[in-house]
Amino acid sequence: MIPQDTIVALATPSGSGAIAIIRISGKDAITIAASVFTSIKGKDITTQKTHTLHLGHITDDNKIYDQVLLSLFKGTNSYTGENTVEISCHGSVYIQQQIIQLLLRKGCRMANAGEFTLRAFLNGKLDLSQAEAVADLIASDNEASHQIAMQQMRGGFSNEIAKLREELLNFASLIELELDFAEEDVEFADRTQFTDLLNRINFVLKRLIDSFAVGNVIKNGIPVAIVGEPNVGKSTLLNALLNEERAIVSDIAGTTRDTIEDELVINGIGFRFIDTAGIRETEDVVESIGIRKTFEKMEQAQVVVYLFNVAQFGIQGSELKTEIEKIKNQFPLKPLVIIGNKADKLTENQKKEALELIPGLLLVSAKENIGVEELKDKLLSFVNTGALRNNETIVTNTRHYDSLLKALEEIQKVQFGLQSGISADLMAIDIRQALYYFGEITGQVTNDELLGNIFANFCIGK
Amino acid sequence: MIPQDTIVALATPSGSGAIAIIRISGKDAITIAASVFTSIKGKDITTQKTHTLHLGHITDDNKIYDQVLLSLFKGTNSYTGENTVEISCHGSVYIQQQIIQLLLRKGCRMANAGEFTLRAFLNGKLDLSQAEAVADLIASDNEASHQIAMQQMRGGFSNEIAKLREELLNFASLIELELDFAEEDVEFADRTQFTDLLNRINFVLKRLIDSFAVGNVIKNGIPVAIVGEPNVGKSTLLNALLNEERAIVSDIAGTTRDTIEDELVINGIGFRFIDTAGIRETEDVVESIGIRKTFEKMEQAQVVVYLFNVAQFGIQGSELKTEIEKIKNQFPLKPLVIIGNKADKLTENQKKEALELIPGLLLVSAKENIGVEELKDKLLSFVNTGALRNNETIVTNTRHYDSLLKALEEIQKVQFGLQSGISADLMAIDIRQALYYFGEITGQVTNDELLGNIFANFCIGK
Repeated sequence: MIPQDTIVALATPSGSGAIAIIRISGKDAITIAASVFTSIKGKDITTQKTHTLHLGHITDDNKIYDQVLLSLFKGTNSYTGENTVEISCHGSVYIQQQIIQLLLRKGCRMANAGEFTLRAFLNGKLDLSQAEAVADLIASDNEASHQIAMQQMRGGFSNEIAKLREELLNFASLIELELDFAEEDVEFADRTQFTDLLNRINFVLKRLIDSFAVGNVIKNGIPVAIVGEPNVGKSTLLNALLNEERAIVSDIAGTTRDTIEDELVINGIGFRFIDTAGIRETEDVVESIGIRKTFEKMEQAQVVVYLFNVAQFGIQGSELKTEIEKIKNQFPLKPLVIIGNKADKLTENQKKEALELIPGLLLVSAKENIGVEELKDKLLSFVNTGALRNNETIVTNTRHYDSLLKALEEIQKVQFGLQSGISADLMAIDIRQALYYFGEITGQVTNDELLGNIFANFCIGK
Repeated sequence: MIPQDTIVALATPSGSGAIAIIRISGKDAITIAASVFTSIKGKDITTQKTHTLHLGHITDDNKIYDQVLLSLFKGTNSYTGENTVEISCHGSVYIQQQIIQLLLRKGCRMANAGEFTLRAFLNGKLDLSQAEAVADLIASDNEASHQIAMQQMRGGFSNEIAKLREELLNFASLIELELDFAEEDVEFADRTQFTDLLNRINFVLKRLIDSFAVGNVIKNGIPVAIVGEPNVGKSTLLNALLNEERAIVSDIAGTTRDTIEDELVINGIGFRFIDTAGIRETEDVVESIGIRKTFEKMEQAQVVVYLFNVAQFGIQGSELKTEIEKIKNQFPLKPLVIIGNKADKLTENQKKEALELIPGLLLVSAKENIGVEELKDKLLSFVNTGALRNNETIVTNTRHYDSLLKALEEIQKVQFGLQSGISADLMAIDIRQALYYFGEITGQVTNDELLGNIFANFCIGK
């Protein structure tokens, strides 16, 4: 199972930068690196200590490829749990390619996606859910998803599962032992203690399964449909919401990310805004297709925001009320935020009138930054972030969620069996099955296909 | 002059990858890093040795930002010549930003473009031409430019200049000493030796100045104008030329560069292809503007490639001859390659006929990969790569070229003065001026504006 070959990949983002890191891992990582590395101080890196840095040149056949800094990790002290060398070279794409090609000629092979982390798993440095958290961590783009991935990578989630699995395994052994003495009718496994354990497991599993609703929201963001005619101030509103975040991002040159205009993070929770047209009655065929699409998008969204120009309220008051009623009738359970934008243009009396006519109306001026904080609070109020605030374990991974559901089902079978006094041999089968699903999460139970699926989602070099 | 503050920047390309490197340099680099780093093994990094690696977490106020690997460089042993810490974190843009922001709060400031290398220069780790070579190295995208930058970074060029400068400085002192004893008519500086030195300097300067023609070509590529109607097979030909390079690039996932369709490296020399239309006679005003542009582009190019579909040769033979004559008349000294593409469609007799009619014609089939190697050889034959092959020092930097030209001018003044027996005080002025231009290259003579110009071209984080 433990791989014998030595892999190489670029670990930093592709493209040109000041420096780039080329990572080599495997049995021969240090000897291969030594064959192309000439230390400035004449040191032999194969005899140097682990966790040391060495300045020198990458050379081959008297050709100097680059001046580099080499990081040495020996034996199990590395990320992968095997000999690892990281070459920090100048960040030209040409140099990166040249050095990687040289290392391939010297006996490395190109790493597959996630193969360094796969090796860390195979070498017992991480369990499977921790390995998955590494990918989540790299993909995290807001505080909440970052925190959850960080917690999972540090073992918060799998520790809990592993502990329960061990207790359950203990009972499984005792019950299987009873089978060997079936004719003597002994009970090695204390049924009261076992019932207690099953209750505890049931409780933990249910909590973890429930947490997936929050976890999923945090990982993927909350889809919000914005219903509104053109020119009611949608993009001004989005900009007002985004303002603070943007300023931070553009402060740090070199780390500017591609801003996706309609994605927005509020207090660490991601919101994805889906732009839709209005939904007025129409006889136009083309427009009525547009209205059907608007309804489809609202269906997919978890929150609907209805935005209109409140400065034109007098003109279109009754139409608005009809539209809002229509949305409420169509989606009675979906949270709806009604925003009257451009409220700075209203007199106090007009504001009062508008608020009376449309209950729950939020008066906003995106341009003057009035009411924007209230809107943020309102959006956040739809997210149950209790678990997040209390630093509880949150499941974000669909694979874990599936395994937890299956494990719960088996545990409930065992609970039922215990109550109805089924035979120990049948109960043992259900327990084994529950143990199997627990093991799937942490990777104690695994197969090549599963591993292949998981690590294919990683980037190369990780 | 030596900076006192501590700078931070992302050193790897922006965007997401497996890992990212955040670099901190300055007096307080290690204490600032220590204030946010918690070693897994409980080590205090301020007391650890230089060139060591440490696993731990970046934390602040009990919040864990990331698990990272920290590289420690103490005192003058670093790239910048001052305390340096490199943080290797998970490559999410969010994490990069969070950690950089944290370090800014802890007392770092954002580094300017090239500021790490500027510090290396100010701290005497590199001279100015070596520092400039770092930027060239990162920008290098083919073997020739890479090799030249590598040689310059290792001091090949500035060593030569520095040695001559020292000898000249020696004579300058002796001649200035003579001025103090002007009335006694002594000669401390041996005029024969001095003439020898000036001749040597003159020789070296001329060689370096001449090398700029090659250096410039290597650094910027050779502009090649391709003249040809649509559908004569231009892109097929470019693809055939690019084929080998492409295969190598796509072999290494994660290092794929943005291919600029019309840039091409042959044996380490870059060629930039400028696409132009044909130049047939026309009465159409719009088209005649196009023809004028074609001529402008040919003017800028160093080589002109005339491409036509030789399979249609019979139909348009005389027109072709006229076009080719026109180009030759317009640019009698410009290398011209005439390519008859789709030659696979011709019989042997037709080929013979074509070659007779158009002297120097190259018969090619881009599709069948016939004649492509010959074309490469032909293009290369226009480049004088002698200096490159002989591993001579090549000047690629316009700033160096200017200083060398000015230094040569001053040296020639001194030579002339020596021959015509001008007074020592006038000669001393010219020598000082020559020394000044020498010093401009290596950075012994410098000013803030010059440094600002040079390092503004660097990327941030280098």
